[in-house]
Amino acid sequence: MCDRTEANVTEDAYAAYRDELIAAGLLIPLGVRGLYGRSGLFESIVDGFEGYITRMGSDLSPEVMRFPPIFSRSAYELTDHISNFPDLMGSIHHFPGNERDHQQLLQTFQRKEDWGQKLSTSELMLVPAACYPLYPTATGTLPEGGRRVDLKTFVFRHEPSDDPARMQIFRQREYVRLGSADDAYEHRNYWLARGKEMLASVGLNVTAVVANDPFFGRGGKVMKATQKEQDLKFELVVPICSTEKPTAVSSCNYHLDHFGVNFNIRTADGKPAHSACIGFGLERITLALLKQHGFRLESWPREVRDLLGL
Amino acid sequence: MCDRTEANVTEDAYAAYRDELIAAGLLIPLGVRGLYGRSGLFESIVDGFEGYITRMGSDLSPEVMRFPPIFSRSAYELTDHISNFPDLMGSIHHFPGNERDHQQLLQTFQRKEDWGQKLSTSELMLVPAACYPLYPTATGTLPEGGRRVDLKTFVFRHEPSDDPARMQIFRQREYVRLGSADDAYEHRNYWLARGKEMLASVGLNVTAVVANDPFFGRGGKVMKATQKEQDLKFELVVPICSTEKPTAVSSCNYHLDHFGVNFNIRTADGKPAHSACIGFGLERITLALLKQHGFRLESWPREVRDLLGL
Repeated sequence: MCDRTEANVTEDAYAAYRDELIAAGLLIPLGVRGLYGRSGLFESIVDGFEGYITRMGSDLSPEVMRFPPIFSRSAYELTDHISNFPDLMGSIHHFPGNERDHQQLLQTFQRKEDWGQKLSTSELMLVPAACYPLYPTATGTLPEGGRRVDLKTFVFRHEPSDDPARMQIFRQREYVRLGSADDAYEHRNYWLARGKEMLASVGLNVTAVVANDPFFGRGGKVMKATQKEQDLKFELVVPICSTEKPTAVSSCNYHLDHFGVNFNIRTADGKPAHSACIGFGLERITLALLKQHGFRLESWPREVRDLLGL
Repeated sequence: MCDRTEANVTEDAYAAYRDELIAAGLLIPLGVRGLYGRSGLFESIVDGFEGYITRMGSDLSPEVMRFPPIFSRSAYELTDHISNFPDLMGSIHHFPGNERDHQQLLQTFQRKEDWGQKLSTSELMLVPAACYPLYPTATGTLPEGGRRVDLKTFVFRHEPSDDPARMQIFRQREYVRLGSADDAYEHRNYWLARGKEMLASVGLNVTAVVANDPFFGRGGKVMKATQKEQDLKFELVVPICSTEKPTAVSSCNYHLDHFGVNFNIRTADGKPAHSACIGFGLERITLALLKQHGFRLESWPREVRDLLGL
């Protein structure tokens, strides 16, 4: 859902829309680039689109699982994130010391030095994608027919930006499929079409594009090209601040057996499970709706408000 | 909402209830003590109680603000948390390096050494209490009559435990008052009474007790005693795993002008603002309801289900 290369030409448009959102009280700046509070109106749009996702997924009867925004470091270490996206990670550190250690910590703090470096690595990481915490809980053999899971959590990406759609922490709502290669591939394609319809039905000018994840470094270039060649990742993009550089508000990913192998998840017939997901970026969709229809719900098209229960 | 001294006698009861919740699929273990996924049923109870809180607060027309589970380190540094509760903090660290640094990070990781220590201190911290991110946004002069704010976020406390009610990350829903000393004191007392009624109305055996925060170390003992003497903190406690050691599911706090002074928040007449909050621990309330009424909604009292829309 993110592409590292943004044209400078759109930087002004990003900052301008961010400032409009802040002036209207929809986003509340928190003193760090890409970190905001959300207003009640903003949240009501998030909730409205979430309700729509729930209704559109209900015929598939997914299991609902809700993970917190942190997960175990040992699970993180099985995901390859440290190899592929190290710059985006958030690692949680803590203070396990005694009172004497505490005095030293406070002295470092009072001298305005880097007191974070006195802390210890905890057993916890911030969640980089809503489906990551699922896989370690799915280790073992899947039921016949595999599983469909409905997820939502806050995900973290350390990428400070003036683009209001590139937040450091935001919510992903996902439908994940675990099963055979066919199950996963079909899920990805089903949701690519259905997600596109949903976004169009709320008045967004949506396009599906082949995409790649923002793999790190020179080695990452090969990974990006391979991912594109294999048509593994599609994004649903919508103009928010720029029509030339539309923003991915949803992504549909086929992971092959990557997570099945890494987390030892097997299908009923003993093969490594394949997986696929659609992720809806709830903040980005909300920002796109506010851009498209304006900041006052009263001026939104009646049919969009009805679909979202607003 | 937490008391550091737990009798060992209840440890077995904690582990037993945790295991029951896991066996029923209500909590999903994530490989770290005190860290769980939540099932759809669990979340529906959280949502139900949240709706009840919203209805009971609506006559006060609070501003709705939603902060993410992380906030700025510079705001954290103004809260005194590092002095009072260092052992509970969560500090976020990141990787700002180039490709050569990345190779070194990966080598440390592959040698199974402490790769977290190769990371840099970020500008971000996990949120320790739902109202902390509010105060830096309120710096300046309050409107006449002050403000009432409706908050919710995930809060983090690094305190691994077998007690399912002592999670490392959980949701607090809060009503915060910023205003004069009278405004804040009245808010605390109003919500102490109203919160108690609400918890009783859903069938919980609730008691209000004077309490203290879990201040760190020997110096913390004095802070605890002073806080209790001044009647600043009340907790609404409910038996979950133990009747002798009931669990705080809500707390009502009068902060005097602590946050007003630290964040330079002033009343319309120029004095440092006082503040107060009620915080509802949504996971703990859900765990108390499941303990009281059982794991099957069908067996819950009709009037409780009606109140919670379940």
